[in-house]
Amino acid sequence: MNCIIASTSTVHGSSYLGYFHDALTELFTGVKEIIFIPYARPGGISHKEYTKKAQEGLKFLNIDVVGLHEKENPKQAIENAQAIFTGGGNTFLLVSQLYKNDLMNNLSDKIKAGCAYLGTSAGSNICGKTMHTTNDMPIVHPPLFDTLGLFPFNINPHYLDPDPNSTHKGETRETRIKEFQQQHKIPVVGLREGSWIRIKDQDLVLKGDLNARVFIPQKEAIEVKPNHSFKNLS
Amino acid sequence: MNCIIASTSTVHGSSYLGYFHDALTELFTGVKEIIFIPYARPGGISHKEYTKKAQEGLKFLNIDVVGLHEKENPKQAIENAQAIFTGGGNTFLLVSQLYKNDLMNNLSDKIKAGCAYLGTSAGSNICGKTMHTTNDMPIVHPPLFDTLGLFPFNINPHYLDPDPNSTHKGETRETRIKEFQQQHKIPVVGLREGSWIRIKDQDLVLKGDLNARVFIPQKEAIEVKPNHSFKNLS
Repeated sequence: MNCIIASTSTVHGSSYLGYFHDALTELFTGVKEIIFIPYARPGGISHKEYTKKAQEGLKFLNIDVVGLHEKENPKQAIENAQAIFTGGGNTFLLVSQLYKNDLMNNLSDKIKAGCAYLGTSAGSNICGKTMHTTNDMPIVHPPLFDTLGLFPFNINPHYLDPDPNSTHKGETRETRIKEFQQQHKIPVVGLREGSWIRIKDQDLVLKGDLNARVFIPQKEAIEVKPNHSFKNLS
Repeated sequence: MNCIIASTSTVHGSSYLGYFHDALTELFTGVKEIIFIPYARPGGISHKEYTKKAQEGLKFLNIDVVGLHEKENPKQAIENAQAIFTGGGNTFLLVSQLYKNDLMNNLSDKIKAGCAYLGTSAGSNICGKTMHTTNDMPIVHPPLFDTLGLFPFNINPHYLDPDPNSTHKGETRETRIKEFQQQHKIPVVGLREGSWIRIKDQDLVLKGDLNARVFIPQKEAIEVKPNHSFKNLS
């Protein structure tokens, strides 16, 4: 495989996709067209508006970016794609739309066959076994929570450490992930904003400047450093 | 109806259910037994442990508290209940379990017929039309997101204002609720921790010291003060 699975599209103080230009340049080397999947609609913006945002963010690459919603036959478009980018937004909306258009299996097969893939936030969440560890609000009801299954664990993007000064009684991210693991014996990688996983052939490596937090069912969570390999995480 | 729909069971610095003892005393006047629904399992604790916690929190009332999981026939237990309390935790787990035990309609009918009801957090979330506006992680997949429909709007418990100093790129609560309202034309009441809605007969009134934030589809959100009536919100 050949993927970048990023926690977020934007970090504090950077432009959209601005913080990892070098990694994107490498990922999309030799590519002439990127299919953009705008289904997650952040803030409820339209597919058209969202595609425009992706085009602007990837302008530095000098590669055509085409919205999947513009394609008459989305399934065929995925099958013919040279590269694919799924943007963030609402994971429930994204997964519902992928199932509605019967694209989940095709997209998975295509990426497993080596098609260059960029995911940010919700677009990264769907790369794991399931979307059970999304942070999003369940604004629509997908028929299933199963996702692309590119690797045998789940992603928690925008991973947030507990705030020791918080007086708020909502659950911490760690509590939520542990509740998930009481239901499903699936490891979870909490990716902090600014981190990504670079998948190349058989290896999956943590990139960016920050540690990631790894949750294995029934064990204490551990911190792993940049360049850590998730190859054996299952 | 005769309900307290509370944002949270616990506010910073108070014990479990400690911040609104007077309101609970009034709600449960004349009641000899409260059925506790422990299905939301906060932090993954067992039904038994959670029921013990509820018993301790309600000890000051001198009323028996019995876990619904102890009843051989939960449907019958709901039908015979004199009062019901649904505790917080994970809304997905709670709703899944209510559907699994075929209790959603019975519980709704029972409360609409006047049975005293206390909900906190997830137990309040289920009182609206749907659970689409929960903050919880989707750790299990409920067959439907429809909930008790005691009133024609949704609750967002633990409502959080945007933090102007945050550098985190996850969506604010307001953004999430507005994304929901692009999909469903349902009003949402954001209940801050320490607030509750007192439903008595036909009226629904905001209680506690804080304002609530009301989201009506396609309008600017508004703040309403304690003692505001939600009677006409639909």
